Amino acid sequence: MSSSIPEQFTGYAALDEARGKKFEVERWSYTPKKWSENDVDIKIECCGICGSDCHTITNGWPSPTSYPAIVGHEIIGTVVRAGSNTTHKVGDRVGVGAQGACCQECDFCQKGLESQCAKGMIGTYQGRFPDDGSIAQGGYAEYTRQQGKLAVKLPEHLDSAEAAPLMCAGVTVFAPLKRHGCGPGKKVGVIGIGGLGHLALQIASAMGAEVYALSHSDSKKADAEKLGCPPENFIIAKDVKETAKKYNKHFDILINTSSGADMPLETLYFPLLNNLGALILCGLPEDKLPAFYCQQLVGKSLTLAGSLIGGTSEIKELFELADKHNIRAWIEKRPMAEAQKALEDMEAGKSRYRYVLMN
Amino acid sequence: MSSSIPEQFTGYAALDEARGKKFEVERWSYTPKKWSENDVDIKIECCGICGSDCHTITNGWPSPTSYPAIVGHEIIGTVVRAGSNTTHKVGDRVGVGAQGACCQECDFCQKGLESQCAKGMIGTYQGRFPDDGSIAQGGYAEYTRQQGKLAVKLPEHLDSAEAAPLMCAGVTVFAPLKRHGCGPGKKVGVIGIGGLGHLALQIASAMGAEVYALSHSDSKKADAEKLGCPPENFIIAKDVKETAKKYNKHFDILINTSSGADMPLETLYFPLLNNLGALILCGLPEDKLPAFYCQQLVGKSLTLAGSLIGGTSEIKELFELADKHNIRAWIEKRPMAEAQKALEDMEAGKSRYRYVLMN
Repeated sequence: MSSSIPEQFTGYAALDEARGKKFEVERWSYTPKKWSENDVDIKIECCGICGSDCHTITNGWPSPTSYPAIVGHEIIGTVVRAGSNTTHKVGDRVGVGAQGACCQECDFCQKGLESQCAKGMIGTYQGRFPDDGSIAQGGYAEYTRQQGKLAVKLPEHLDSAEAAPLMCAGVTVFAPLKRHGCGPGKKVGVIGIGGLGHLALQIASAMGAEVYALSHSDSKKADAEKLGCPPENFIIAKDVKETAKKYNKHFDILINTSSGADMPLETLYFPLLNNLGALILCGLPEDKLPAFYCQQLVGKSLTLAGSLIGGTSEIKELFELADKHNIRAWIEKRPMAEAQKALEDMEAGKSRYRYVLMN
Repeated sequence: MSSSIPEQFTGYAALDEARGKKFEVERWSYTPKKWSENDVDIKIECCGICGSDCHTITNGWPSPTSYPAIVGHEIIGTVVRAGSNTTHKVGDRVGVGAQGACCQECDFCQKGLESQCAKGMIGTYQGRFPDDGSIAQGGYAEYTRQQGKLAVKLPEHLDSAEAAPLMCAGVTVFAPLKRHGCGPGKKVGVIGIGGLGHLALQIASAMGAEVYALSHSDSKKADAEKLGCPPENFIIAKDVKETAKKYNKHFDILINTSSGADMPLETLYFPLLNNLGALILCGLPEDKLPAFYCQQLVGKSLTLAGSLIGGTSEIKELFELADKHNIRAWIEKRPMAEAQKALEDMEAGKSRYRYVLMN
């Protein structure tokens, strides 16, 4: 073990729920999980801020947050210690997304679809490592120890900060777009232009699809154009009835990046889909979906699909695509020490479209 | 035009709603649609009875039935007149399923996915032909005139009566099974062992999947075994909780052949599906699906898919599969003149598993 790697890792943690709810984070040191030769230690260069970070730090998920909590799962850094059972070597620049460990043995893990791991995915933060029972801590930190299998080597040309959001937001939209046939000749509508949506526009476009943005106002129209959505394909979907009529059966794929449960399934999304089309849900609504009649689902042979992040095979493909088509997250860099302010701004919806905390 | 083809076609029709509701059918003659060189006249050999026939004849669908109504859309017969724009010739033995006409021009029709026709599918009965505005009449008859594009030539070795149910029931399960990846290494659960289900067991098995039957009692266990479901794969899913636990994440595909709306989505079907699994709905429930939380749909990256019959390319593939793997509908032959009794028995759930009316 290199003498330069500290025994304890230091990051920006919410120490308890009361402070978490106010996004109060402070420097805190912890002993990382017991070293295993399956692991890598990563010196963190930067970490994107994901909506999940806000949910977790405020104890807003159904599963309670274990404090102190260091969040952050769009990590880019350099391998400073590489387990002998990993394929990494010291000096590799790698990314770690929302998943830090997996069983490594099931069919899904073997295929690089680790987010589907038969034993359940182990989160990069808040996950419980099976080997020593400790709680994983995330990327708002100087170092992190995660399973080497979940660290993916970056192509040379990708900028670390611009690539960080690909690790979670990017693969969350890429994996289902690929699975549901996004490509040349397909019309893809991206619902919600934010952290996920601004990447979905670029990714679907790079995959060869004709992309559309569906938004509530024209405030992001100019951005959408730069992201690959021609101005005439920017749809202000405020009037549900009118939009459903105008774009009836227009789309092969709709990808909903928001997590509001109150979706206009029968009045808008199903009508917009062409026969054999797919509506992809990337967000996880807190409430039930509205009950719906099946006339459209069955009559048009539609698919309603959920999707949870993506695995390393999908991240690798996304990196190749990003490298080839110049897909870059639109980011604002913030110093790691100002994580609290960045979290507040993120929660306030100010990001255009991702904050990346820099060490 | 051969002089042996009558000017008027004769079949067994419900003359009005009152009689339809009692399945009272009587011999009735009508003038078929105006001949077009896109059409074929078929001398009907036999016609399977589909649940849709019962719904239509009793005016049980949302769209009102136009009387007099001759139903029947699992038709096998011989081409006696072949339009010059068709690929058929007199003497061809063909099948016509639930669709009798389409636009022939859209992408879907060009690909042989006519049930997705951009202009809407035109039913073999109750459909309205665009060229002369007349209402199509079905297969409980001596002759029918339909578009040649929707008539599919039968392989030599398939028995007409045993093949008839493939035209609707068969392709209704085959098309979505294929679309959602049924094949070797996949575990497929067939929910409901009836007209569709008994074919789904054979078809999924022929496609190389490991098949299971989900039923409410063991009354069809012996049949299921003969249909390709090993006895240990016959699941009596009466106790939802116990079944969900025992077969948790067991299935790659569940195909629901029933049309009850009150589906145990969150308590049974979603838990039974493995990650990336698909629940296929072939039936069209009259009521709304129960509202559900998305934890499983998103967390396990599941697909909820509807499906409407299938097109000629899918019917052709099914014929090849049936020919190769000896897929045969289990049928009871009834004389065409006894259509009323057969409809009554069908409605009473007595069929094991399909009645086929014979001329």
